[in-house]
Amino acid sequence: MSIDRLIQKIEEKQNPTVAGLDPNLAHIPEFIKKESFALFGETLKGAADAIYRFNTALMDALYDIVPAIKPQAAYYEMYGYPGVEALYKTIEYGHEKGFYVIADVKRNDIGTTAAAYSSGYLGVTRVGETEIAPFNADSVTLNPYMGIDSVQPFIDDCNQYQKSVFVLVKTSNKSSADLQDIKTEAGQLFLNAAELVHQWGKQSAGTCGYSNVGAVVGATYPEQAEILREKLPNSYFLVPGYGAQGAGAKEIKPCFNSDGKGALINSSRGIMCAYKKMGYDEHDFAKAAREEAIRMRDDIMSVIG
Amino acid sequence: MSIDRLIQKIEEKQNPTVAGLDPNLAHIPEFIKKESFALFGETLKGAADAIYRFNTALMDALYDIVPAIKPQAAYYEMYGYPGVEALYKTIEYGHEKGFYVIADVKRNDIGTTAAAYSSGYLGVTRVGETEIAPFNADSVTLNPYMGIDSVQPFIDDCNQYQKSVFVLVKTSNKSSADLQDIKTEAGQLFLNAAELVHQWGKQSAGTCGYSNVGAVVGATYPEQAEILREKLPNSYFLVPGYGAQGAGAKEIKPCFNSDGKGALINSSRGIMCAYKKMGYDEHDFAKAAREEAIRMRDDIMSVIG
Repeated sequence: MSIDRLIQKIEEKQNPTVAGLDPNLAHIPEFIKKESFALFGETLKGAADAIYRFNTALMDALYDIVPAIKPQAAYYEMYGYPGVEALYKTIEYGHEKGFYVIADVKRNDIGTTAAAYSSGYLGVTRVGETEIAPFNADSVTLNPYMGIDSVQPFIDDCNQYQKSVFVLVKTSNKSSADLQDIKTEAGQLFLNAAELVHQWGKQSAGTCGYSNVGAVVGATYPEQAEILREKLPNSYFLVPGYGAQGAGAKEIKPCFNSDGKGALINSSRGIMCAYKKMGYDEHDFAKAAREEAIRMRDDIMSVIG
Repeated sequence: MSIDRLIQKIEEKQNPTVAGLDPNLAHIPEFIKKESFALFGETLKGAADAIYRFNTALMDALYDIVPAIKPQAAYYEMYGYPGVEALYKTIEYGHEKGFYVIADVKRNDIGTTAAAYSSGYLGVTRVGETEIAPFNADSVTLNPYMGIDSVQPFIDDCNQYQKSVFVLVKTSNKSSADLQDIKTEAGQLFLNAAELVHQWGKQSAGTCGYSNVGAVVGATYPEQAEILREKLPNSYFLVPGYGAQGAGAKEIKPCFNSDGKGALINSSRGIMCAYKKMGYDEHDFAKAAREEAIRMRDDIMSVIG
């Protein structure tokens, strides 16, 4: 599912947002954890069971309005290999419900190792004579610090398996300035990263005017987003920072092209933890998530319409 | 096990090297795969079984001469969650055999997410009232592109659990130049990364003169290594690039301080695939790995002695 499929799903739902699934146990209602711990004890397997129950209920509540999910690998890996099994099952269930699935893994490594990662997340792994897609995500996030060697195998898999990638350019966190804002001859460092994304994207174009090599651009830096939008007209932006991290619809507007396309806005805690913020009974967490997802959609569509 | 424990193990073995465990099935002898596939079929579980057999045999052959192992996460994740279980078991067995275990994960993410990763790999995760160490590595590799937010939780866990980290500074691959060599006011970008490592390291010092915040410095760039060695006298260098990637003992010498300390040289394929290069029967892969590990130790000790 190249970037075309993402764009198609966004159009169908009239909703350029992605629900981040970051199932730290602290976000999961007590009644779910109680059921899982009753079955498996306070173990990593118990945690993984609670995560999967939480995620599937959220996906059931969101699939007809939200085009994409973005599981953040850290919140699965922190529960060990049982957590990683929950990641696999979450991706599988996400596909069943029709979501475009972005595995937020931010991987980066030298060529042969990058190829191993890409086989794991986007492509296929060979076991004997058998080919298996170990995680089978539609898209992954990547870090550009090691250059094209570390990205090329993913681009190859984008072309072979109709997938996409989003490369970190300007991230939403405060200390993104530490390296990304350092001055260079071509402007701040993140502009150099943007130029690489632009070049890399030429190798893997979708048919809707966008390449399969997107960029991660934080909503918390709207001025930089405006510059990047101009520099990268053919790259979709995956935009963290809306909601819990502080940015609103106004801040995310510069991430879109003038036709209202070009950006996918993420909300993780905003949607997952809506039941806490809204003061709902925890049994209504999925209903609250749906309400927040609709509110967010309408909020964003109001500025790009 | 802070950096002190690594230094102690290097001293005990008189061997500043680490065996990379990158168990792509292509590197594993046929007889092992045959046994595993007979039990589990050509499945991810079969692959994971072969990986674990291969790794434990290598560790049995190396533990009395090599102080550390470095499993590369990509070669486990490429076999899905069963592969990640093999990573967990490899780390556990590595500890049983007395190795310092560096999980080569190159993680990077915003603060809350970095904390989740750190809980997974270095620290502990809370499940209900129970604390569990999901992977329990002694050290991890990190990517600096997102700045201190993405590193701080790991430094905190270094201090709390006596662990260490190695941050990418100048990587061994050809395209490390794409971003890392870009000119800035403070010299090439990687020198800015080095300065961050220097600052971050002040928060977490070992007792042997080295901080718990080390640097990844590729052996394939000896001139840059020499500059970095001077700039980071208190950081241990994790050095990829020896052997299969082309660098020899001469190239790695600048990574060491004048007292012969300060660097840990990695070999992955060089050791794992020694049986192929030496033309040994595949049943003798562990014996070949041991011979190559001894040759490598002697080669390196000859230039730093």
